[in-house]
Amino acid sequence: MSQPKNALYAQSGGVTAVINATASAVISACRQDEQVGTLYAARNGILGALREDLIDTAQFSSAELDKLAQTPGGIFGSCRFKLKAIEEHEQEYRRLIEVFKAHNIGYFFYNGGNDSADTSLKVSQIGTELDYPVTCVGIPKTIDNDLAVTDCCPGFGSAAKYVATSMQEAGLDVVAMAETSTKVFVMEVMGRHAGWLAAAAGLAAQSEDQAPHIILFPEIPFDEKSVLARVEECVQEYGFCAIAVSEGVQDHAGNFLADAGSKDAFGHAQLGGAGAAVASLITEKLGYKHHRALLDYLQRSARHLASQTDLEHALAVGQSAVAFATAGKNATMPVIHRQADAPYEWEIREAQLADIANKEKTVPRNFIDQSGMGLTQLALDYLEPLIQGEAFPAFRNGLPDYLRKSLELAPKKLSHWDIEG
Amino acid sequence: MSQPKNALYAQSGGVTAVINATASAVISACRQDEQVGTLYAARNGILGALREDLIDTAQFSSAELDKLAQTPGGIFGSCRFKLKAIEEHEQEYRRLIEVFKAHNIGYFFYNGGNDSADTSLKVSQIGTELDYPVTCVGIPKTIDNDLAVTDCCPGFGSAAKYVATSMQEAGLDVVAMAETSTKVFVMEVMGRHAGWLAAAAGLAAQSEDQAPHIILFPEIPFDEKSVLARVEECVQEYGFCAIAVSEGVQDHAGNFLADAGSKDAFGHAQLGGAGAAVASLITEKLGYKHHRALLDYLQRSARHLASQTDLEHALAVGQSAVAFATAGKNATMPVIHRQADAPYEWEIREAQLADIANKEKTVPRNFIDQSGMGLTQLALDYLEPLIQGEAFPAFRNGLPDYLRKSLELAPKKLSHWDIEG
Repeated sequence: MSQPKNALYAQSGGVTAVINATASAVISACRQDEQVGTLYAARNGILGALREDLIDTAQFSSAELDKLAQTPGGIFGSCRFKLKAIEEHEQEYRRLIEVFKAHNIGYFFYNGGNDSADTSLKVSQIGTELDYPVTCVGIPKTIDNDLAVTDCCPGFGSAAKYVATSMQEAGLDVVAMAETSTKVFVMEVMGRHAGWLAAAAGLAAQSEDQAPHIILFPEIPFDEKSVLARVEECVQEYGFCAIAVSEGVQDHAGNFLADAGSKDAFGHAQLGGAGAAVASLITEKLGYKHHRALLDYLQRSARHLASQTDLEHALAVGQSAVAFATAGKNATMPVIHRQADAPYEWEIREAQLADIANKEKTVPRNFIDQSGMGLTQLALDYLEPLIQGEAFPAFRNGLPDYLRKSLELAPKKLSHWDIEG
Repeated sequence: MSQPKNALYAQSGGVTAVINATASAVISACRQDEQVGTLYAARNGILGALREDLIDTAQFSSAELDKLAQTPGGIFGSCRFKLKAIEEHEQEYRRLIEVFKAHNIGYFFYNGGNDSADTSLKVSQIGTELDYPVTCVGIPKTIDNDLAVTDCCPGFGSAAKYVATSMQEAGLDVVAMAETSTKVFVMEVMGRHAGWLAAAAGLAAQSEDQAPHIILFPEIPFDEKSVLARVEECVQEYGFCAIAVSEGVQDHAGNFLADAGSKDAFGHAQLGGAGAAVASLITEKLGYKHHRALLDYLQRSARHLASQTDLEHALAVGQSAVAFATAGKNATMPVIHRQADAPYEWEIREAQLADIANKEKTVPRNFIDQSGMGLTQLALDYLEPLIQGEAFPAFRNGLPDYLRKSLELAPKKLSHWDIEG
């Protein structure tokens, strides 16, 4: 057997409740694999790889790895930074190779969403294009659930469970208050282009009188007249109306409702948010008092309500990524393949980064009912398995006991590198 | 022993994660008390009492009562409706007596906050003023934690636990993203006049680098210059800044930031929200990208993350209310008396409604540090016991298994009654 090579892992894009579980699994798997020497993690994604900001993962005890798997956020820091094509910015790739060489990196793991799959794909090409052999494996992660090929994305199931629970709980609140107070409740969720999280809110309703009564998807143009008519109908019939609004809802002309340019308290333009726009419209046109919640980062960091299924996915893709890398499967990604809805069965399969990078999987039309404001049984069959099981973190002193750790950077071997914006 | 009298229970004001636990305790205690005949619940608070919309609580099985104690919202419906003084609106009290007489009501339980304590107090006076003997007991409830006399209010501890957990989780998210993206996170919490929930967010920080770095209380006038300076300092020192903003934050002139009159997407005025105002100000003045969450109803209905301590308070006040009533303690309220901070010890004591109604307990100045943007040790000592313990509900199919029950109204004996607004 050849000498073991070192490995580099990095987190990229928006973080999730379970991306650290994937990190934990990658670290554990590398420790058990004789073909891997030291596993480094890059600070702040690909930026850390370029800057040589490397963290030796040996500094995690095995108790800390268990705790890391229960901790939301991205322990190594993430970034929103897309590498240009090799021919456009060869210098950057040369630097990456310099760092890889200096630290004997033979395996590179990039854990992220769409843009990150693109970065992984580019890095996977430096072997053939620039003659530095590295086995590059992408690892899926995104609460947006919009990656191609994989059945679902680690991070989505937990966000979906949180969104559905929040809608269910708020619905019970509003229905109690509706007689003399709030009649309309609007909850805005993430998903600029894909309405998966808006769809997830629909899991809360066990019958048609329950929240949510309306789901507004980015995939369906916002139709003021039909939405208002449905609100009115719900208030008449059920006494209240609860609405899940994707941040990415657009009008028929393709303009985001969120961009409709409100002025804030200090007199300057601000993005009002799609939820705010919809809520105000309802109050103006129908006169109903509304309340409105904006989940924002809470939906992607709510580790306290993680889905056990999602956690298992997150661990499995991390573990498989290491197996793929040491088997020399360059330019691949471990993906989740669904074998059955109920009882839910799944396995990890191998996918090609080229089939995933820069593609976006939106909610199919047949997951959305004819009104454009609700789910079909197909959607429920798809979504339900992903929120099953509770993976509560340990608690201490009343709060989740998440890992807090100062990470030491490995000694640098190269000169300073400035990132070009 | 005299013939047992029937009892009437009602929920009032904003609901909480544990007000149904109190209801469950009241029902159980009444079943075990020979002095109580039938326990009715009024639909939508005092309105149901006036309208004779009564629900016989015998329709709950004991399994349903257990589930009710795990269900957020207000199962019987709540209301925002304040009775006028007896001399101003004697007719309304006469109607109440008519309903009480028709259903042989000798005990009245009103479960609510400030306004509700006032209503309870007024109802307690109909014995002496209008010669109908009823024993009226108020039961405390409010996430705002602003009731006088009681050490804390059932509902607050669970909301506090949710708010602190959410801030902790969002903080881990932002710190991972701060290098290339969001540097400022703003979370708006409830509390129009009292900053207890804003203070609760402060439980998330275990050291000064952790979220939240700034708490904005309604008790402290908003000072733009010092807030911006602190934001800048945090971003420089910790890489990011997380802020908890009470919806009730006011400027030096006493104007709510939330009322600063923005225009929304559809061109009409809307309340921007204090969080939105603060976030936009920071981006405009300092140039930092922000993200912003608005918890709204989620913070008062998040039963999935209830505090066990809060739940125990909620059950105890329900149980004690029944004991107070059958002991003839009219115009009282069972309150929580703290005996020790650590280890936390408490007991139920008897308070007079007259000492509670229309009073408001805000956060004392010595709970807020000198900067006006943080907590003192006194505050932490007070808050910490209230979020201890996890009272997770049962889950089914990936979501909390809350009680859903259609409630039948008891046959009416009186003619229709129109509520005057």
